[in-house]
Amino acid sequence: MGNVVIRKVRAILTAPNNINLIVVKVETNEPELYGLGCATFAYRENAVKLMVEEYFSPLLEGRNVADIEDIWHLMNNNSYWRNGPVTNNAISGVDMALWDIKGKMANMPVYDLLGGKSRQGAAVYRHADGASLEQVLENVQKFIEQKVRHVRVQWGGYGGRADTLNKPDGASDGVYYDPDQYVNNTLKLFDYVRGKIGFDTELLHDCHERITGIEAVRLAKQLEPYRLFFLEDVLSPEQGEWLRMLRSQSCTPIALGELYNNPKEWDYLIANRLIDFIRVHVSQIGGITPARKLAVFCEQFGVRTAWHGPGDVSPVGHMANVHLDLVSHNFGIQEWAGVNETLHEVFPGSPQLKDGYVYANDRPGLGIDINEELAEKYPCKTQVTTWTQTRLPDGSINTP
Amino acid sequence: MGNVVIRKVRAILTAPNNINLIVVKVETNEPELYGLGCATFAYRENAVKLMVEEYFSPLLEGRNVADIEDIWHLMNNNSYWRNGPVTNNAISGVDMALWDIKGKMANMPVYDLLGGKSRQGAAVYRHADGASLEQVLENVQKFIEQKVRHVRVQWGGYGGRADTLNKPDGASDGVYYDPDQYVNNTLKLFDYVRGKIGFDTELLHDCHERITGIEAVRLAKQLEPYRLFFLEDVLSPEQGEWLRMLRSQSCTPIALGELYNNPKEWDYLIANRLIDFIRVHVSQIGGITPARKLAVFCEQFGVRTAWHGPGDVSPVGHMANVHLDLVSHNFGIQEWAGVNETLHEVFPGSPQLKDGYVYANDRPGLGIDINEELAEKYPCKTQVTTWTQTRLPDGSINTP
Amino acid sequence: MGNVVIRKVRAILTAPNNINLIVVKVETNEPELYGLGCATFAYRENAVKLMVEEYFSPLLEGRNVADIEDIWHLMNNNSYWRNGPVTNNAISGVDMALWDIKGKMANMPVYDLLGGKSRQGAAVYRHADGASLEQVLENVQKFIEQKVRHVRVQWGGYGGRADTLNKPDGASDGVYYDPDQYVNNTLKLFDYVRGKIGFDTELLHDCHERITGIEAVRLAKQLEPYRLFFLEDVLSPEQGEWLRMLRSQSCTPIALGELYNNPKEWDYLIANRLIDFIRVHVSQIGGITPARKLAVFCEQFGVRTAWHGPGDVSPVGHMANVHLDLVSHNFGIQEWAGVNETLHEVFPGSPQLKDGYVYANDRPGLGIDINEELAEKYPCKTQVTTWTQTRLPDGSINTP
Amino acid sequence: MGNVVIRKVRAILTAPNNINLIVVKVETNEPELYGLGCATFAYRENAVKLMVEEYFSPLLEGRNVADIEDIWHLMNNNSYWRNGPVTNNAISGVDMALWDIKGKMANMPVYDLLGGKSRQGAAVYRHADGASLEQVLENVQKFIEQKVRHVRVQWGGYGGRADTLNKPDGASDGVYYDPDQYVNNTLKLFDYVRGKIGFDTELLHDCHERITGIEAVRLAKQLEPYRLFFLEDVLSPEQGEWLRMLRSQSCTPIALGELYNNPKEWDYLIANRLIDFIRVHVSQIGGITPARKLAVFCEQFGVRTAWHGPGDVSPVGHMANVHLDLVSHNFGIQEWAGVNETLHEVFPGSPQLKDGYVYANDRPGLGIDINEELAEKYPCKTQVTTWTQTRLPDGSINTP
Repeated sequence: MGNVVIRKVRAILTAPNNINLIVVKVETNEPELYGLGCATFAYRENAVKLMVEEYFSPLLEGRNVADIEDIWHLMNNNSYWRNGPVTNNAISGVDMALWDIKGKMANMPVYDLLGGKSRQGAAVYRHADGASLEQVLENVQKFIEQKVRHVRVQWGGYGGRADTLNKPDGASDGVYYDPDQYVNNTLKLFDYVRGKIGFDTELLHDCHERITGIEAVRLAKQLEPYRLFFLEDVLSPEQGEWLRMLRSQSCTPIALGELYNNPKEWDYLIANRLIDFIRVHVSQIGGITPARKLAVFCEQFGVRTAWHGPGDVSPVGHMANVHLDLVSHNFGIQEWAGVNETLHEVFPGSPQLKDGYVYANDRPGLGIDINEELAEKYPCKTQVTTWTQTRLPDGSINTP
Repeated sequence: MGNVVIRKVRAILTAPNNINLIVVKVETNEPELYGLGCATFAYRENAVKLMVEEYFSPLLEGRNVADIEDIWHLMNNNSYWRNGPVTNNAISGVDMALWDIKGKMANMPVYDLLGGKSRQGAAVYRHADGASLEQVLENVQKFIEQKVRHVRVQWGGYGGRADTLNKPDGASDGVYYDPDQYVNNTLKLFDYVRGKIGFDTELLHDCHERITGIEAVRLAKQLEPYRLFFLEDVLSPEQGEWLRMLRSQSCTPIALGELYNNPKEWDYLIANRLIDFIRVHVSQIGGITPARKLAVFCEQFGVRTAWHGPGDVSPVGHMANVHLDLVSHNFGIQEWAGVNETLHEVFPGSPQLKDGYVYANDRPGLGIDINEELAEKYPCKTQVTTWTQTRLPDGSINTP
Repeated sequence: MGNVVIRKVRAILTAPNNINLIVVKVETNEPELYGLGCATFAYRENAVKLMVEEYFSPLLEGRNVADIEDIWHLMNNNSYWRNGPVTNNAISGVDMALWDIKGKMANMPVYDLLGGKSRQGAAVYRHADGASLEQVLENVQKFIEQKVRHVRVQWGGYGGRADTLNKPDGASDGVYYDPDQYVNNTLKLFDYVRGKIGFDTELLHDCHERITGIEAVRLAKQLEPYRLFFLEDVLSPEQGEWLRMLRSQSCTPIALGELYNNPKEWDYLIANRLIDFIRVHVSQIGGITPARKLAVFCEQFGVRTAWHGPGDVSPVGHMANVHLDLVSHNFGIQEWAGVNETLHEVFPGSPQLKDGYVYANDRPGLGIDINEELAEKYPCKTQVTTWTQTRLPDGSINTP
Repeated sequence: MGNVVIRKVRAILTAPNNINLIVVKVETNEPELYGLGCATFAYRENAVKLMVEEYFSPLLEGRNVADIEDIWHLMNNNSYWRNGPVTNNAISGVDMALWDIKGKMANMPVYDLLGGKSRQGAAVYRHADGASLEQVLENVQKFIEQKVRHVRVQWGGYGGRADTLNKPDGASDGVYYDPDQYVNNTLKLFDYVRGKIGFDTELLHDCHERITGIEAVRLAKQLEPYRLFFLEDVLSPEQGEWLRMLRSQSCTPIALGELYNNPKEWDYLIANRLIDFIRVHVSQIGGITPARKLAVFCEQFGVRTAWHGPGDVSPVGHMANVHLDLVSHNFGIQEWAGVNETLHEVFPGSPQLKDGYVYANDRPGLGIDINEELAEKYPCKTQVTTWTQTRLPDGSINTP
């Protein structure tokens, strides 16, 4: 093959799972050669599409697909202001697609380009919740029967008793959340589940950045007897410094980062060993190039990876996670929200879960494709996002 | 007046000065009552417009214009991922517009709502450059004649001898920059200008985040004899920690921050007194609400404000800067790129410069309007941004 | 290609340049497919050969060449005690050879596997010395005429006036070194050369880990007026903590590390930004895998690479340096001792220097080969190493 | 005696205990005068022998045996790259042998040369393991009956349920280790044993550098109720910085260092009091000269010695340990793997254990000899080391 250059960059919007997914397709001057990447930002899908097609496509046209490192820096600098959602999603989509292309050109899976497999499959954690303690337990046990060894537990979703809350006069309707009730319930939950299943299965928990600094310290400390695999997103990006206090008192392992966009959000956490697992959303930080660098950075400090893997990541994004998981010596665990039948049809080659491990395939590149005709049948819908409008009992917005 | 609520939020694109400007207009249920804010992100103008109109307008419709604090947090949290360009620009536009409305409702200038004037006008610094030392000096002297007491000097733009540079074979065309030449020239420039004008006029200099950590330390140290008012953007956002070394060796005052979007980029700099002036772009961090808080935070640590005020800010944005300047006890200086005749026509009420000070007017709100019909005559043009593609002599992208 | 596995690992000793070089050849089950790596430890060549052939070859036989990351950790752990010379050299040879093989299998240069070129050529620095100030200057000027922009200067080799030194009675013969004379001469040298050539050419200097902590601080400080590109190996590996003092006082850029074998020698230097350039010998730290990780680690902290590139590196090792240089965004400079005619014959495809830049070629893998028959004609000679036996004026061994 | 000089240095390989041992013999110009030292690196025995005989013997020939300090620095610097296995083992062998010679020349035991006995015997700890809790307890009790007061306990070797582990498809065969199971079992073990034997016997435990940073903190914290004498090798050399967190939360005494080769691995641990016992392998760090200095360094910080004393140390090495133990005021404890009958025959004069104390004899030098003829009957066998290839449940190499 001669010099292969970028011809066009497009963003494909599709929602086979009723979640807005964004897949970037980088087309080259070779008719059959293209790459796919995940640029999903489910709540701002049209902004990402516009960014990709109006700004990145003309910037990238004619550039050599081989020079990923150079192109990444070019994209990152190009609008002067950088390191944030929308832009980073667009960059991620292009970056993953370029690695996909490089793998196809090399006739190698991306994990082989990156140094080869450190393991055959990536252990996952699944999410078990329920309206009652019994229901959570039942869901935990279902996963154990499926040979899943790591289960994240949550009682009653986030928030709850909006009906019984004592709110001030005039407080608006909406999603309410009571941190005090939440913390007490969480302690009850762990006491109950650990009492039933013992210590052979690893338990995890997600705070979703909703509690205050001192409560984070207290919760991490009070959870110690239950030996969590990790406590997830216990603090908001802005309040990471509280970890210095937390780490002087609690040995509960800490995983952080699904909200991070900016290196300043994670660099000091890692360099000071304030976390045990980095949990960034690979399509929020700029794709495989910076994610692989981040994994390497973490490796120096004994921090492990636990890439964000929720429903609002496309199967292409899940696949990028798995390729990184297979390579990185310091891989920890993979969040796995699942890829259902419809998604498998729209995205042939999607990663497969079996007995608690998720697997890539051995096709060149990322090994995943998109059926564009089918994708079109599941159009995205733009809606005002309400689950992000949680309020505390007094009616104020919940942003610790 | 009863409950005034938001009816619609629009973004107006205009380029009277050949720079893409974005102004947000928040319309209310009161026919004549609206507010204006600056959401300018000149290199991604359509993405910001889409963000404002497709995502923020439906989110905000029907909300009480009085509740700026609540609305700010609502906007900041709404897409879950936060703290970045595009989103922050859109938030900034809405936030400023709500302050504008509040002022109009109170029949008071915004500076009065915020606590009243600490000073009557805001001292500015202007930019003097030139292809030769003599030309820079000439431009400095012009400003001195205009009673401007603070002048930022630059010799030959950024970069330079692309024609004479020894580049490797195959290096692409483009904008080249030689840090070594730049530093040597900057030292010569200060030696020359200080020698000519003495110490009665304050001199400043902008590095535009182009040099490495150690070079930043060395330059700040070598510039000491020339008594700068401040050295600007000497480091990229990612490399702020180098200031610990710089501050142990050099007493040259440091101003940083026009690229910042994220609180983690500035919080440690201020809390550790690693800078002397905070220079954020108010329409990049979310508007008047967070900028006023940032000024207050800085006041605790003896850090002063120097809000970014370049050509790629709309006059509405300049006006927001000036209102903040007049109020803040710890105001330092205001960058002033100027508002020319055309801009004054499109934006009636724009701030006025006189004898080195810039002034707000005493009209309610921000005291500035937009002539939409005229604005339409200056459509924005989307172009691939090339000035952000600077390369070092060896052809690699310049991002220290 | 099916599963390609390692068949045998050999070490080839050759000394075409009168320096003992060690090249590892990894042979696979595919008859024509092999890889080359540099394992040079010129002063312990037979120990490295034995390590490769007696210990690593049986360990690696039958393993999949794709799994470099896994194989690296396997090798690093295999003898329990780790992180030192001999072992690390052997590992480096195998690791580079595996990357060479991966590139050949992908039909891509290694720099493309690693992310593609960030630049077309790697800027080098050359070494100019001389018995007199004039002679050093003359040699500097020769390099400038060759368009080399970075020159390392040294007056009179290391040590010197053994004849005139006032030694105690009974002091043994040997190589003598007077740190006081050395420091004074070095300051004179810079004063002289800078006075003659001005500031357009970058000057460097190497202390070769011979002075004490406080002298390192003083020298770095006294050299400030001469604006070094960097001061090299100013401290021994054991005394790196002195850099905290040095960095609080001097802005002379610091490059360190050619002696490093162990991550604890460099991790704190980088994480605390105590150096500006990491200068490790890639075939002393375990090859391309850890070197690429180290470059990435440095990138987070604004530290640049300057891989060790002396005469006691084989052309295969030089080539590995250049591949890393081309990829790494935070490449700084490449030491270049040169590859003469004989070496080019023994190692076809060796990197080429032109006008101050060194280039890789675009062949798959590392793009370099060895002519084994020719190599055999230059057998290695084991000698007692005397240049490492330097003594201070009082006769004690010089190891600060 | 006139000037006694080194005539020749040899390495003797022998495996009377089925472990490859390396003993260095330094022969002098005095026919009957020679010294012995331990250079054992069981998994790279031939490399050490080659290093000793091809590189060190010619370097040392003719040098005055009196000048140990000078010779040590000479050896340490001679190959330029330093501080690692193989080289350090060779140096250790020579260094110990020179002390042995010096003692013989002085007609004094080495402990007398070093300052004389601080104690008469060195208290030891022994290792008790077993496949079941009951078996471990039984072995503990056997030691108690032998008047050993310090027992290290381990349940089921390292790892375990490889048969029942849920591994990913395609995971290779090998030694598997499950950190979660290990930690849970260790806690159960201590609960069981302490429950049975009370607190009169000191218990110890060895993690063998297999768990992650946060798990090390947690384990040290959870073991507090069982009052360990110390917790051994809880972290790998590369991850020692995690001790800062561990020390802020746990008061379990910490012993570290059997893997150390390089002063940067231990210096900060001691200077910051991050450990309580230094546990280096004396023949890995360069012999008696640096070990005595290390003990002195530790004494300044209240850190005690616990030299590594496993089966892969020769009786000569054990003897060096005991001489150091008897002298050092800050001696803590001596690991004692035992010297069986065969070893006693091959190494006449080996240290003797009695009632929990190990003793040196009062012969000149180290007081131990080797029967070379007998030694030859137990040739070393080079094998691929498999116990160092432990894998985690997902198949990745276990190197936290």
